[in-house]
Amino acid sequence: MMPAPIIFHNAVNLALNSHTQDIIFDVPLLLQSGTVLPSYCLRVETYGTLNADKSNAVLICHALNASHHVAGLDEHEQLGWWDNMIGSGKSVDTDVFFVVGVNNLGSCFGSTGPTSINPVNNKPWGQDFPMVTVEDWVNTQARLADYLKINQWAAVMGGSLGGMQALSWSIHYPNRLKHCIVIASTSKLSAQNIAFNDVARQAILKDPDYKTGGIPKSGLSVARMIGHITYLSDNDMAEKFGRQLKYDTLQFKLGTDKASADFQVESYLRYQGEKFATYFDANTYLLITKALDYFDPAAKYQGHLALALKDVQAHYFVVSFSTDWRFSPACSREIVAALIKTHKHVSYAEINAPHGHDAFLLTDSRYISAMRAYFKRIQATL
Amino acid sequence: MMPAPIIFHNAVNLALNSHTQDIIFDVPLLLQSGTVLPSYCLRVETYGTLNADKSNAVLICHALNASHHVAGLDEHEQLGWWDNMIGSGKSVDTDVFFVVGVNNLGSCFGSTGPTSINPVNNKPWGQDFPMVTVEDWVNTQARLADYLKINQWAAVMGGSLGGMQALSWSIHYPNRLKHCIVIASTSKLSAQNIAFNDVARQAILKDPDYKTGGIPKSGLSVARMIGHITYLSDNDMAEKFGRQLKYDTLQFKLGTDKASADFQVESYLRYQGEKFATYFDANTYLLITKALDYFDPAAKYQGHLALALKDVQAHYFVVSFSTDWRFSPACSREIVAALIKTHKHVSYAEINAPHGHDAFLLTDSRYISAMRAYFKRIQATL
Repeated sequence: MMPAPIIFHNAVNLALNSHTQDIIFDVPLLLQSGTVLPSYCLRVETYGTLNADKSNAVLICHALNASHHVAGLDEHEQLGWWDNMIGSGKSVDTDVFFVVGVNNLGSCFGSTGPTSINPVNNKPWGQDFPMVTVEDWVNTQARLADYLKINQWAAVMGGSLGGMQALSWSIHYPNRLKHCIVIASTSKLSAQNIAFNDVARQAILKDPDYKTGGIPKSGLSVARMIGHITYLSDNDMAEKFGRQLKYDTLQFKLGTDKASADFQVESYLRYQGEKFATYFDANTYLLITKALDYFDPAAKYQGHLALALKDVQAHYFVVSFSTDWRFSPACSREIVAALIKTHKHVSYAEINAPHGHDAFLLTDSRYISAMRAYFKRIQATL
Repeated sequence: MMPAPIIFHNAVNLALNSHTQDIIFDVPLLLQSGTVLPSYCLRVETYGTLNADKSNAVLICHALNASHHVAGLDEHEQLGWWDNMIGSGKSVDTDVFFVVGVNNLGSCFGSTGPTSINPVNNKPWGQDFPMVTVEDWVNTQARLADYLKINQWAAVMGGSLGGMQALSWSIHYPNRLKHCIVIASTSKLSAQNIAFNDVARQAILKDPDYKTGGIPKSGLSVARMIGHITYLSDNDMAEKFGRQLKYDTLQFKLGTDKASADFQVESYLRYQGEKFATYFDANTYLLITKALDYFDPAAKYQGHLALALKDVQAHYFVVSFSTDWRFSPACSREIVAALIKTHKHVSYAEINAPHGHDAFLLTDSRYISAMRAYFKRIQATL
């Protein structure tokens, strides 16, 4: 059940820098789990200028471990995760569009989440933070649109979990977006997808440091390694690392951790895992992967996605990548087929790209061009 | 470098029951790592009767977590792991063939391994047990053949890691097997395969119970869950579990382990992981997965498998399964192509089966029939 959208809020805006602000919503939010969050903060990054009739706004929804920081350099000189796509003169041209990135509720990059202070006891929420779903995120983003006085987004777009949010927007707020851009995504996870997520969660939940409320670095690291394998294609890994050994002789010896990483791919993955464990919150990981698992708008229509999409109004652009085995082209084609079945507007691009699921973040000229062409089309109708 | 085969041994045979025996080899074994094992035991199971000219012997090589117990019921009333394939009147007919199953050196089901007593200090070897490779196993199996006075196997066969041993036999002891049967296997792991193995190893190595020499149940459980996902096909998981939820409402709540398994696939995998952790040795898991990673007979020929196979004499039967994404049909076709390139005898069956890598253990009528037909052909030449 979706709570009715609340149109007016007591919101406080704390500007952090010229692009970034914290917006505090002081109106209770009913979550899908039934829990009520009395107030919450969303950290937001914006680029470009909202035009007079507020018709040029684009909402960017993020995937598992990303944030509001979509473009440009932040205060730590870090480039936004979609900087190759978003900026002046780029596919999503910030000279034309007003682009809004938002860190999801429950995440750990500025919006209210498990690492925030719980006002009830003035301690970090930690394991007390409630479950949040894709629908909850869309509801908070609708409130954000209200606050920004954006009645209708020119487009809501995202890749992977971000694509699910875009899809959910089009279902739950059909008249509040003109275009819905769903990249490398799916309308529901497969049993295999859920299985990978649950192994990653188990690695965290079984880490003694998690149980005692500390930082489960080992669990987070293993979780990230598992995830990372599913983001890359088999061929991509083969080309990047092959079976390259770092030494001439067999190095493996029980009881020696370091020496046993004699294949390049092992060192790479362990490094990725350990880096992730230094900056990502374990509870956020648990919540967000579970939100992925739960997402299934067709569930209440006995699996008929076309029925879930029968009242949508947006025009869709669906994009998939040939070597993505996490959310394969078949998942995107299922969305496209359901839209066609219920006579909606949809364009579809299946990009022949070698980089697996990660391709949605990378600079592939066909992908970037397809996005540019679609946004030119949106621009023409502003 | 392969140590020269030693033809005569001081071997002691301890019969455990009518089918099972422990054979103790009291001659030092030089391992590929350079370590010398002064003596070791192999636990062996045999079925059928060795004929007068010793031409009807079939060696069964096992995969990661299997053992010598290939057929029939053992003392715990457990059925052998290939009982659907091996037995009286079955594809590998024990009324015709003398079938030998052997637990690999370094495993934990009776042969010498990390759980055995190290004669140096009268404590279990544990993390002091040396690395063992596919080639080391084949050398110990060649000594076993010597002990059994089998000069030439009618066939050496195995699935997955077992298939690698069969392939290695044909390369290192070309005149000691007439047929080489390689099922759901590969001549080398891909970077992705190695990555999955290394994540599983990391789950064990990072478990504090492993570091203190205890039983890393959490790590073993996560390792098994990862492995298990790769044994099943995506479709098979979808058919078995789909997105079936156990409850009507969202169950996930941080800090509650049990309640969070609300998808059927989660409960299934967790059960599999926890069961595995009760019976499998962690050091054995580390060693055997690393042996998988290292196997690559073409490595010393700059990756040219046909060169590695140029002196083989066996006739080959290579079998793959359409939905196996761990060792896909492409891996088997690579072996077949290399054999053809160097003008060897090879038959190949690509079985259209839904069950992924696990298919090699399951009863698929086409698979069972193909094996029966091949063994009838072997029988005709005895």
